Amino acid sequence: MASSSLTLSKAYLAQQPSYERCSPRPADHHVSFTPRRDLPRLRVRRRICVRASSAETDVVEKSVNTIRFLAIDAVEKAKSGHPGLPMGCAPMGHILFDEVMKYNPKNPYWFNRDRFLLSAGHGCMLHYALLHLAGYDSVKERDLMEFRQWGSRTPGHPENFETPGVEVTTGPLGQGIANAVGLALAEKHLAARFNKPHFDIVDHYTYAILGDGCQMEGISNEACSLAGHWGLGKLIAFYDDNHISIDGDTEIAFTEDVQTRFQGLGWHVICVKNGNTGYDEIRAAIKEAKTVQDKPTLIKITTTIGFGSPNKANSYSVHGSALGEKEVDATRKNLGWPYGPFHVPEDIKSHWSRHIPQGAALEAEWNAQFSDYEKKYPQEAAELKSIVTPNLPNGWEKSLPTYTPESPADATRNLSQQCLNALAKVLPGFLGGSADLASSNMTLLKMFGDFQKNAPEERNLRFGVREHSMGAICNGITCHSPGLIPYCATFFVFTDYMRAAIRLSALSEAGVIYVMTHDSIGLGEDGPTHQPIEHLASFRAMPNILMLRPADGTETAGAYKVAVENRKRPSILALSRQKLPHLPGTSVQGVEKGGYVISDNSAGNRPDVILMGTGSELEIAAKAGEKLREEGRAVRVVSLVSWELFDEQSQEYKESVLPSGISARVSIEAGSTFGWEKMVGPKGKAIGVDSFGASAPADVLYKKFGLTVDAVVAAAKDLG
Amino acid sequence: MASSSLTLSKAYLAQQPSYERCSPRPADHHVSFTPRRDLPRLRVRRRICVRASSAETDVVEKSVNTIRFLAIDAVEKAKSGHPGLPMGCAPMGHILFDEVMKYNPKNPYWFNRDRFLLSAGHGCMLHYALLHLAGYDSVKERDLMEFRQWGSRTPGHPENFETPGVEVTTGPLGQGIANAVGLALAEKHLAARFNKPHFDIVDHYTYAILGDGCQMEGISNEACSLAGHWGLGKLIAFYDDNHISIDGDTEIAFTEDVQTRFQGLGWHVICVKNGNTGYDEIRAAIKEAKTVQDKPTLIKITTTIGFGSPNKANSYSVHGSALGEKEVDATRKNLGWPYGPFHVPEDIKSHWSRHIPQGAALEAEWNAQFSDYEKKYPQEAAELKSIVTPNLPNGWEKSLPTYTPESPADATRNLSQQCLNALAKVLPGFLGGSADLASSNMTLLKMFGDFQKNAPEERNLRFGVREHSMGAICNGITCHSPGLIPYCATFFVFTDYMRAAIRLSALSEAGVIYVMTHDSIGLGEDGPTHQPIEHLASFRAMPNILMLRPADGTETAGAYKVAVENRKRPSILALSRQKLPHLPGTSVQGVEKGGYVISDNSAGNRPDVILMGTGSELEIAAKAGEKLREEGRAVRVVSLVSWELFDEQSQEYKESVLPSGISARVSIEAGSTFGWEKMVGPKGKAIGVDSFGASAPADVLYKKFGLTVDAVVAAAKDLG
Repeated sequence: MASSSLTLSKAYLAQQPSYERCSPRPADHHVSFTPRRDLPRLRVRRRICVRASSAETDVVEKSVNTIRFLAIDAVEKAKSGHPGLPMGCAPMGHILFDEVMKYNPKNPYWFNRDRFLLSAGHGCMLHYALLHLAGYDSVKERDLMEFRQWGSRTPGHPENFETPGVEVTTGPLGQGIANAVGLALAEKHLAARFNKPHFDIVDHYTYAILGDGCQMEGISNEACSLAGHWGLGKLIAFYDDNHISIDGDTEIAFTEDVQTRFQGLGWHVICVKNGNTGYDEIRAAIKEAKTVQDKPTLIKITTTIGFGSPNKANSYSVHGSALGEKEVDATRKNLGWPYGPFHVPEDIKSHWSRHIPQGAALEAEWNAQFSDYEKKYPQEAAELKSIVTPNLPNGWEKSLPTYTPESPADATRNLSQQCLNALAKVLPGFLGGSADLASSNMTLLKMFGDFQKNAPEERNLRFGVREHSMGAICNGITCHSPGLIPYCATFFVFTDYMRAAIRLSALSEAGVIYVMTHDSIGLGEDGPTHQPIEHLASFRAMPNILMLRPADGTETAGAYKVAVENRKRPSILALSRQKLPHLPGTSVQGVEKGGYVISDNSAGNRPDVILMGTGSELEIAAKAGEKLREEGRAVRVVSLVSWELFDEQSQEYKESVLPSGISARVSIEAGSTFGWEKMVGPKGKAIGVDSFGASAPADVLYKKFGLTVDAVVAAAKDLG
Repeated sequence: MASSSLTLSKAYLAQQPSYERCSPRPADHHVSFTPRRDLPRLRVRRRICVRASSAETDVVEKSVNTIRFLAIDAVEKAKSGHPGLPMGCAPMGHILFDEVMKYNPKNPYWFNRDRFLLSAGHGCMLHYALLHLAGYDSVKERDLMEFRQWGSRTPGHPENFETPGVEVTTGPLGQGIANAVGLALAEKHLAARFNKPHFDIVDHYTYAILGDGCQMEGISNEACSLAGHWGLGKLIAFYDDNHISIDGDTEIAFTEDVQTRFQGLGWHVICVKNGNTGYDEIRAAIKEAKTVQDKPTLIKITTTIGFGSPNKANSYSVHGSALGEKEVDATRKNLGWPYGPFHVPEDIKSHWSRHIPQGAALEAEWNAQFSDYEKKYPQEAAELKSIVTPNLPNGWEKSLPTYTPESPADATRNLSQQCLNALAKVLPGFLGGSADLASSNMTLLKMFGDFQKNAPEERNLRFGVREHSMGAICNGITCHSPGLIPYCATFFVFTDYMRAAIRLSALSEAGVIYVMTHDSIGLGEDGPTHQPIEHLASFRAMPNILMLRPADGTETAGAYKVAVENRKRPSILALSRQKLPHLPGTSVQGVEKGGYVISDNSAGNRPDVILMGTGSELEIAAKAGEKLREEGRAVRVVSLVSWELFDEQSQEYKESVLPSGISARVSIEAGSTFGWEKMVGPKGKAIGVDSFGASAPADVLYKKFGLTVDAVVAAAKDLG
């Protein structure tokens, strides 16, 4: 049953034994992810009913309108925002948060909670209203009133670092659904590793709402193709099919058959025709989705954007602007809403109030279960604990390989693989992979197999040629649990394909490790389409990210030490395709400072000239240094492996590396010289590549582009 | 008939009158894009046969093997490259270039040629071999022997700027198929505008080959969704379904049902089961594709990667490495190929030799037809001519609006719209649109309607929320004809979604105009997900692109003047959401120099302090300048609207703007300060935003982030 209209869904449900309709799935211990038989049947689960009583429907309707008006009022007060989506999606939002999801409002970080993501992040007032009603401390009435204001916890798009209860940062379209794939992947992986008979210790769903915009973005197709491939049965996505985008009716640009596409992607598809008031249809769809365990489900749900607004509903004017006082009044009349702004009726407050004790009970129950689990499976419990918490295992960094100048020359991509494999042994939450370049990026973990639909316990992720969703999926994995440390890989130049996801790693404080090989024209014959030039500069300019370009084995190990430690900011490692020697003077401690002296024959912090390099060009700087020293010069050679880390050092330290009195400075890096003025100063010389590369063997290119020892020596001499 | 297996295709073809099978489509003047009845029936068209004679098949087989061995030998000599695809795709390549496509080898730029794109660009030896056999001067035997070497015309991936006959630059996966959508769009648009009864003056197909990698990339889904929406019936794409990607069998990451997905996208899908030797199947598929005029066609063609290699075929090892001497020999034996490296048998040379006279005849015939057309439709002919050639109409720049300091303050995005609409009146090849933000980016051309399936003559392109393919489609449009000048738009921050396409504009010398609004934290409440920070720096570091950030109406007009003139490099215009005054001293001539003095009360090129700004912050610099002058200082205010253009000026001019003796310099720009050291020097001060932004009203953000007149004044005073 690959898909169904609602009618079909109903027929399908009718085939089930009747008790199925209003009770939880019977436990089946042959299948993972099922509730334990001996758990108390909590109301939060029991309420997934196909049919509700009339009194219940009244409360639901009132709750749904409460959500709508909280959104309308907040946008109106801010004079800015997106009321249309919350007004249309309030019914599904209500059902999810009030009837379906398990969570603990007083601990938004409870490990086993269901995850909810608003991929159509502009509709964030929906999420804020739901968090408010559910009793989260992060969204009090005051916060709703400060929507989109400086310092508030209710910014214009959902931000996980501002608002506990928000799982990921969304807004840039399509990212959220890809994050959701990451969260669902994390659940499936951890469940496969840690669940035991009678202990479904990892057991939650991931719900997402995505709109037409998310559907049009390529990243969502990539991510959903992977979700289908991986069979992420506990991912349930609501496609808010409202036929309106900013430019008007979707007819002008989006007439594909989404349902058929998702069937092609291997999803189960359910159509809900009345998303505005068809509460039972929505409930039935969710119930059906949960019965499909081997495929993710898309619930295509037709809603009216701005539902309830008599003059603006179903038009783009309600998408991204306040309704205006007059239309707010008209909407109040139209929906029969007698209350003032931001008012939550007492009966609705009372109705939602149960989620605080229920959430506490859910967590307590899970804790008790975990305590039993810990007794029976102490090793697994310890491992899972280290994934649930941000604490790294003691001494993990000792696993990193060490090198001496005598170690055989190697490409940093190969040295990186040694580090990855060392880390996988000591970090239980370490997993990752490449966008179809594992054998070039050297990212396979040899002790593990491939994470696949039927092997979800494994840790090598095979993303296919889908860089953008790879980044966003890793963001989702990071946001699932603080001890999950995902890495992902492609050629450095193809960060261009995934830059929006990398930026969201940085913004949302997701410590993803980006393993980016083939980091310069040194990749050779593949030519300029594959040769990064401006990429180092472009990431050095990005806030809250570490751009690391190690020069040899020791610096590569140092880069991984930094990357693993930085759980609140992502790291990009730029690694060479070509072999590099292990240089005397490089050190892990040096890498941690971002810039440091690797060799020096000057005295009193007064070298004649300072030579600087990063990555594969540090060798060239070092050789040029030797040559100049042979001619009697006092030369300092500096590695600038990470500008961000160097910037963070004390003024005193920086002065000890790059004394301001020394203006004779030469830098060499196989990339744009943009930004190097800061390091070499107005009298120095930056050697680099400021045009596109070319297709030829690497050694030819280095010569043709002037990245040579002779060029550095000549530049140093020119400076006197 | 949305799709068909080959059997279905055969059944379908069997319904056609038998003369259909081996003769061109009968002309039907009610439908566009049909050949003229009175054209000579050239062999190049007649040869689209469903069944070929045995002798013909022998030649075909030999020609196909010639292509295979040219690829094998070139990769072997280079010791680098991708033999697998050419070996598998040689049959479809042969049929396209020898039997189906119309082109003139001696004029690769003939306007009405069929276009061919290798979206799976790594297989470029296929294309080079075909160009070689067809008689293109750009790929002589010597060029094949210099594959992937410095200075050769046969680089490691197809590059339009290196090799006449290559339409676009591909390699980064998914780009080519999106470029193909742009080429097909251009054809459909121009045909609708210029074709007349009996004059199908614009009439060609666009053919592309894409692989599994292209299919996985999100950009291809975006572009193909648009192609379906637009009903680009003359786009025919071959999906080389060989089940192998770099990481191995596609089973590990790509198990979706591509055929179903493309049906969802509104394509006609044909399956060819034997792409290795099923020549008639391939011919039949192309024939069927041509009968479907309202939908693009995907021919899903199953091939064996590395076909003919006894030990490496159908494995990833043949994808991206030379076969090795031993396996080359084994392949020669296996395919019965007695010839030495790079040898083209005489009968094959002779067989292909007809394309030179035929191509010349095709072009001559078109020229004759155009000459008749010109007599009958002189105005249309003149307009089409200006699209076919790179020459801009005389005096076009006079259409740009002018402003004075008294003109009403306005956002540069609105001033941009005035420019766009002015240019649309004078540039026949000007067209473009936005990724679902037309009403925010202000990009609608008021005198035109929307380009749609049934209104292809219009010029407002509606891309939907598909930034990445938008860029690549515009690259395709630019590469179609030198006089086509596409612009495209989104929020500046979402250049992150399309960066790979923008980079290809720069690399492939495609003068696309990127209209990027909401260019700083000045966009306000939408918050940090929507606020660009590092973007200006990241594009300043990119080669061959102009990053322009105009400050007011005059500078916006200047930026458009520059952008339109630069047909060989793309331009990005960063434009404000917020209102800005028209500043005294700004000028179009100044913009053309990239940096210039807008006001100065100093003498002898010796100001006390230089204040610099771009875009919306130039106003702040100007106000700070006035304040300091009131206090008796000699202050120069400089606009640095485009760093690239300023860099290109003479040393003397640069010195006249930023005299090296003046170290008291303050810059202000609402973005990363990365790179500004170059302008302000080690003693100067760069005011900017080096963290992510925040959600709040714009004026609050400017204060909180210190982008104020007072901050500039204070910094200037600090410098003494």
